[in-house]
Amino acid sequence: MSVTTVGELSEAEVLAVIMTGLKGSSSALVGPGDDAAVIAAPDGRVVASTDTLVHGPDFRLAWSSGYDLGFKAAAVNLADIAAMGARPTALLLALAMPTETSVSFVSDLAAGLRGGCDRLAPGCAVEGGDLTVSDTLTIAVTALGSLDGRDPVRRSGARPGDVVAVAGRLGSSVRGLDILFSRFRDADGTPAPVDLALLSPQERDDLAAHLRPEPPIAAGTAAAAAGANAMMDVSDGLLLDAARMADASGVTIDLDPPRDAVALRGGEDHALLATFPGAMPSAFRVIGTVCKRSAHAVTIAGQAPVDRAGWDPYRDWDRTAG
Amino acid sequence: MSVTTVGELSEAEVLAVIMTGLKGSSSALVGPGDDAAVIAAPDGRVVASTDTLVHGPDFRLAWSSGYDLGFKAAAVNLADIAAMGARPTALLLALAMPTETSVSFVSDLAAGLRGGCDRLAPGCAVEGGDLTVSDTLTIAVTALGSLDGRDPVRRSGARPGDVVAVAGRLGSSVRGLDILFSRFRDADGTPAPVDLALLSPQERDDLAAHLRPEPPIAAGTAAAAAGANAMMDVSDGLLLDAARMADASGVTIDLDPPRDAVALRGGEDHALLATFPGAMPSAFRVIGTVCKRSAHAVTIAGQAPVDRAGWDPYRDWDRTAG
Repeated sequence: MSVTTVGELSEAEVLAVIMTGLKGSSSALVGPGDDAAVIAAPDGRVVASTDTLVHGPDFRLAWSSGYDLGFKAAAVNLADIAAMGARPTALLLALAMPTETSVSFVSDLAAGLRGGCDRLAPGCAVEGGDLTVSDTLTIAVTALGSLDGRDPVRRSGARPGDVVAVAGRLGSSVRGLDILFSRFRDADGTPAPVDLALLSPQERDDLAAHLRPEPPIAAGTAAAAAGANAMMDVSDGLLLDAARMADASGVTIDLDPPRDAVALRGGEDHALLATFPGAMPSAFRVIGTVCKRSAHAVTIAGQAPVDRAGWDPYRDWDRTAG
Repeated sequence: MSVTTVGELSEAEVLAVIMTGLKGSSSALVGPGDDAAVIAAPDGRVVASTDTLVHGPDFRLAWSSGYDLGFKAAAVNLADIAAMGARPTALLLALAMPTETSVSFVSDLAAGLRGGCDRLAPGCAVEGGDLTVSDTLTIAVTALGSLDGRDPVRRSGARPGDVVAVAGRLGSSVRGLDILFSRFRDADGTPAPVDLALLSPQERDDLAAHLRPEPPIAAGTAAAAAGANAMMDVSDGLLLDAARMADASGVTIDLDPPRDAVALRGGEDHALLATFPGAMPSAFRVIGTVCKRSAHAVTIAGQAPVDRAGWDPYRDWDRTAG
């Protein structure tokens, strides 16, 4: 069966494939088709963030479908907007693809972006973008959001006495990644297609959390409305990200001992980590306390953690793609 | 002499290099350091666009310095905001780099981004971003802007009887690119360093227009204030982009015969193409007239143009990097 690639199409034809995948989802004042989109920013401010998925360090095509990647690209960017206490309003997509990329992959990617928005942040859609050719498939998404009159919730606002809480999963994504690396590679280490029949329901759930994460986007605005002092998304592991929050706030975050140590180091769950001076929304669960600054940014039941943890792309990528 | 590469640094250290290059330029409500930036959108709307430079199809490292690339990445994105009649307010940078990228290159790139903003759109700065590792150096920038209460100027608004006008250069960038391809390659075609001493003042000027373009950003808001009916930036060549405007507007654009045919096909100048029902700002010069739709989207003195023109990354990249 012959597969049509983007190299056989013009830029306009590739764009048409993407627009079909996104079709009808625009709610912008000016949507795709002009030099720029125009998006409502009702309270006179816009929240903006960008995050990129790169073939190799961030995903393998043997493991992730186009739909998975579109969904994940939406999810991780929506999480950054939610982490400020904002409501996502629009995405922009900068897509760089090898000419040998199949058109059906591109179509799936667009559908995944739309599916991620519809599921996690209804009303938000891809409103603009850029297409280019590259040797490395690269999906750079920018997300915009509205604070709807609230103050942004920054990572620097944690205060001693606050409760530390999290909404969303911790550790599922890295367990899913471990399944891929340990069980779906050829003898020479090359990523191989996943056979879901080999996985338990729990393993399938972890794998889905890795390939198609569903961060608790609505919990972001709920936390802001409830008076969260600090918030951020957990993208590089709880230990590392809690330390970032503690350093930015000039406090120590003391975590309760986790039931599962993987919750401390596992990245890419995009849970929301927040601190509250009082009551918190139901999506959050308590995982620790904010203390006066001590020698360590993060402690676990008062003790310094043993190992360095967290994902660092400049240290941790093994240079394989697949 | 040993060169420090980003692969020898942690993500936080690479980020610190970039922040030093950008230092002090933030004017955001919340700038770099949180999950997202918060940017003023004074009239309750934000203009947003994204554009990417990819090593290989978009630039060669033998020809472009880090500063050049940062400057150009800023310029091409600022032009998209200007083309809507808006004032640029912020950039976001998604930077994907090979681990062997030198730290000094990264520092230069950040300085170029800041230099481009300072020169072309004072008050606009990089307010957030994302760093990742990639086999292919990729610079994805998102630009935001404010219409300051004006209507956006779209490409679909051209009306028969409008004057067609352009602000900025046409053809310089492609002449600069031709100089690089014809005179600064090794015998096997590999890009080689530029020796400016071999170039005439005019050639140096064209080369600068390619490597470090200076689109007329302020002319965008001036055009909107003067009542432009349609506007877009000329990124893929005048013939192709004027045809896009004509198709979007349901009109024919009749261009005056150019003194230099390269002005019709040359891309990447990021001039502003606009149509005006009456007086136009001094930055613009008349290059044609909007007519009722005929068989052709674009004509030249009433005649159909002879050749297809314009840059299409899915057709035109020769697959070399360098």
